Amino acid sequence: MNRSDVIELLLVEDNPDDLALTLRALGKAGLSRQVHVARDGLEAVEFLFCEGAHSGRNIAEEPKVILLDLKLPKLDGLEVLKRIKGDPRTKLIPVVVLTSSKEQRDIIESYQLGVNSYIVKPVNFERFSEAVRHLGHYWLLHNQPPKIAE
Amino acid sequence: MNRSDVIELLLVEDNPDDLALTLRALGKAGLSRQVHVARDGLEAVEFLFCEGAHSGRNIAEEPKVILLDLKLPKLDGLEVLKRIKGDPRTKLIPVVVLTSSKEQRDIIESYQLGVNSYIVKPVNFERFSEAVRHLGHYWLLHNQPPKIAE
Repeated sequence: MNRSDVIELLLVEDNPDDLALTLRALGKAGLSRQVHVARDGLEAVEFLFCEGAHSGRNIAEEPKVILLDLKLPKLDGLEVLKRIKGDPRTKLIPVVVLTSSKEQRDIIESYQLGVNSYIVKPVNFERFSEAVRHLGHYWLLHNQPPKIAE
Repeated sequence: MNRSDVIELLLVEDNPDDLALTLRALGKAGLSRQVHVARDGLEAVEFLFCEGAHSGRNIAEEPKVILLDLKLPKLDGLEVLKRIKGDPRTKLIPVVVLTSSKEQRDIIESYQLGVNSYIVKPVNFERFSEAVRHLGHYWLLHNQPPKIAE
């Protein structure tokens, strides 16, 4: 499989407004081509572990980063994070929580589960876009992921 | 203690050229005021655990991020990382490895030890400065650290 076909960023987001804003900010930064969107926690897990509708995917083709909302239908974000960081096949993939929750309990639990970074969604539209641009650049262009798919 | 006196970034770097370049890039981005520099791995550990010359420091005043070189005198970077991530008092502090090593062994071992991010120092002067500006912005202004000292 050609590297250009491989998903580089898995975006787990159910809120349509936040999803549109995030994709637009990534697009403006030239970073939206290799994004897969999962709209609930269960689909995120099925994508990552190549189950259900994603059973044909190669698990060795890891995204460079996962952007994970916390409040999600079907399976909540902390449970998704626990499964990613608890499985040797996925635990080294960088995960950034991108959430509206500023609650200390969510922040601490995310770090205890092994999140790589925690970003509180800015309420202001422009600042939200700027945060997404910065984190896209940082994780897709600067950070060295643990593994590059062949 | 006033928050403005607390160290926000611990920079662990022994190479004088890389150190000067990193501090200059942070300075240009307006991010160099609350930086502490440790020039070897032992001093980094003593700073973090408030030992030796740092025995008067309050361990609850955690930096927002640690930038950690790997090839260090006295105690190497992977050993420093192991101690940070192996101690409940420091394990949640975000650590970014900033190194010239592109070796897969170093990358994988860093992630296995729990590093939050791994950046390979660009050889080019301008790109090195840009990477430091981006990571400074990301970890000091966008990322939500696990704990803010009172």
